[in-house]
Amino acid sequence: MNAISNPSLFFFLLSIPTFQNRFPYYEDNPAFYAAHLKKHHAFKVNGCDAVLGYILNSAVAKFHWPAEHWAVDSTNQTVTLNTAADATPEERSKVMAETLAAEAKRGNFEILKGWRNEKYPVYAPGGKFLLDMERCASPLFGIVSYGVHGTCYVEDEQGMQFWVPRRAKTKQTYPSMLDNSVAGGMSTSERPFECLVREAEEEASLPEDVVRATAKSVGCVSYFYVRDSRAGGEVDLLQPEVEYVYDIKLSRDIVPKPSDGEVEEFKLYTVEETKKALANGEFKPNCAVVFIDFFIRHGILTPENEPDYFQILTRMHRRFEFPTASHFAN
Amino acid sequence: MNAISNPSLFFFLLSIPTFQNRFPYYEDNPAFYAAHLKKHHAFKVNGCDAVLGYILNSAVAKFHWPAEHWAVDSTNQTVTLNTAADATPEERSKVMAETLAAEAKRGNFEILKGWRNEKYPVYAPGGKFLLDMERCASPLFGIVSYGVHGTCYVEDEQGMQFWVPRRAKTKQTYPSMLDNSVAGGMSTSERPFECLVREAEEEASLPEDVVRATAKSVGCVSYFYVRDSRAGGEVDLLQPEVEYVYDIKLSRDIVPKPSDGEVEEFKLYTVEETKKALANGEFKPNCAVVFIDFFIRHGILTPENEPDYFQILTRMHRRFEFPTASHFAN
Repeated sequence: MNAISNPSLFFFLLSIPTFQNRFPYYEDNPAFYAAHLKKHHAFKVNGCDAVLGYILNSAVAKFHWPAEHWAVDSTNQTVTLNTAADATPEERSKVMAETLAAEAKRGNFEILKGWRNEKYPVYAPGGKFLLDMERCASPLFGIVSYGVHGTCYVEDEQGMQFWVPRRAKTKQTYPSMLDNSVAGGMSTSERPFECLVREAEEEASLPEDVVRATAKSVGCVSYFYVRDSRAGGEVDLLQPEVEYVYDIKLSRDIVPKPSDGEVEEFKLYTVEETKKALANGEFKPNCAVVFIDFFIRHGILTPENEPDYFQILTRMHRRFEFPTASHFAN
Repeated sequence: MNAISNPSLFFFLLSIPTFQNRFPYYEDNPAFYAAHLKKHHAFKVNGCDAVLGYILNSAVAKFHWPAEHWAVDSTNQTVTLNTAADATPEERSKVMAETLAAEAKRGNFEILKGWRNEKYPVYAPGGKFLLDMERCASPLFGIVSYGVHGTCYVEDEQGMQFWVPRRAKTKQTYPSMLDNSVAGGMSTSERPFECLVREAEEEASLPEDVVRATAKSVGCVSYFYVRDSRAGGEVDLLQPEVEYVYDIKLSRDIVPKPSDGEVEEFKLYTVEETKKALANGEFKPNCAVVFIDFFIRHGILTPENEPDYFQILTRMHRRFEFPTASHFAN
């Protein structure tokens, strides 16, 4: 077991403004939680009781909600997509797409300038697919998004080392920051493992057969991410995220390489170097969470060497106020 | 990756009355949560703002609270240990010990008949030690308790097998049920890894040097356990628990053996046999949680083969309304 030089990585994580803990917990202070919720409208869809996300009040005010499709209730602080209660997902998605396209054209939202032509899904309780929306708009609605993170590492007589990529300077979000070996968002109808295989090829040039043979599903992390300026676009938008996590143990002869221009280079980091980079804030924040999960599962962070061990574990497995997806392949 | 025969182990877990999910979540239904809380009094200590546990109203009514040391407020539903605001932990613990000894003598509580002469600690926010109390009384006050669970397994060309003990018929709690290879509660001032080493020797006859060399810290699980008749004593008492989890990979020549009469026998279970026993409800409920955590970390349960994957992960890492300990060894 490695001793850890910095006694609490988490203390550092808590201190960085973008970390998931800016969105409060009810159980810590019910009044503070209620006051914080008041800064948002609940995003709802006609025919479904559940709250699907939180929209910042300032975004509600600035956004144009066509009255034939949307109901904004400023007393109850809700924004409801008013399609028929028995509308199909396609019908709801079409209205959403038209609303977002018009808003993007209007040009009032920085975040909509990062249009990606990729769709993110929204689910009702029980995991029922409700609709999807352009990926870059998801933080405007504060919906739960899903992704995969794979940590490539080698472990032999030279010890444990991680394949850490540096994001390209030209990336829209978190330019030049350190990242996880393989990471990506899951579009509508994509499955976690298939997403991992695709991203590993696209981002790290890892052959499909290697990933299928070596990647091991090891859990997921979930957190309430609050966007800051490094994420690009409007700040304080909410991004609750579920990231499925994979360990990818590689032999020394398999070397990840940039392929799609999103990554500048891959370098091998020792455990100590990784901890130092984490403590210096060099990692994209959600990648730091995935590394800390790795450190916990591999006995590097322990209850005896990390004062906030229990807090870390519960905070990186946050349960949401919103319905979530099942990615069961039935 | 193994395919899983039963698509949702969790669905089974949800269906057994003792599982942690009988204590509701605020975010699922605030009104239901509030109504459920009303069945309890908050346990408090003078000089500390935090709620330290929940006491069932029926237990508050039946328990004798000496007025010189205790304040019962039936309007605000609190029971407060009224020692001086600046009392020492020893002073508070002494009053608690006297109150509990008198109550045990009175004989009104089944649960106090299981007196163990072992102390469980209670912490204030920031992990400050407040007092301790006799272990068997902890569910009466609903305080958070801490323990360790180690899973002994072998993994070689014959596949993966677990060393599963059966509890003695004579055990006060959960007689004859299946258990984890090594498990035990942490007394005041005990550290997780040292507790594991001690329990491994006491319960499984595992030599100290083997445990120190092979046991790997891999996380913790936390849940709100609600006691039923199998636990012995009064039902519906609350037991929020944090269990530090260890993987103990053994070679075939190391064989755990009963030593203290608490275990009847150890047997090797394959993954499939373990799943079947889980689905049949043969495991003590919190041991089932630890196995499911193992299955997730080892790629046996995946987002694609377990419909409730995300729910399982967040529910087995429950954050509490109460302050929790740090077991940092500074």
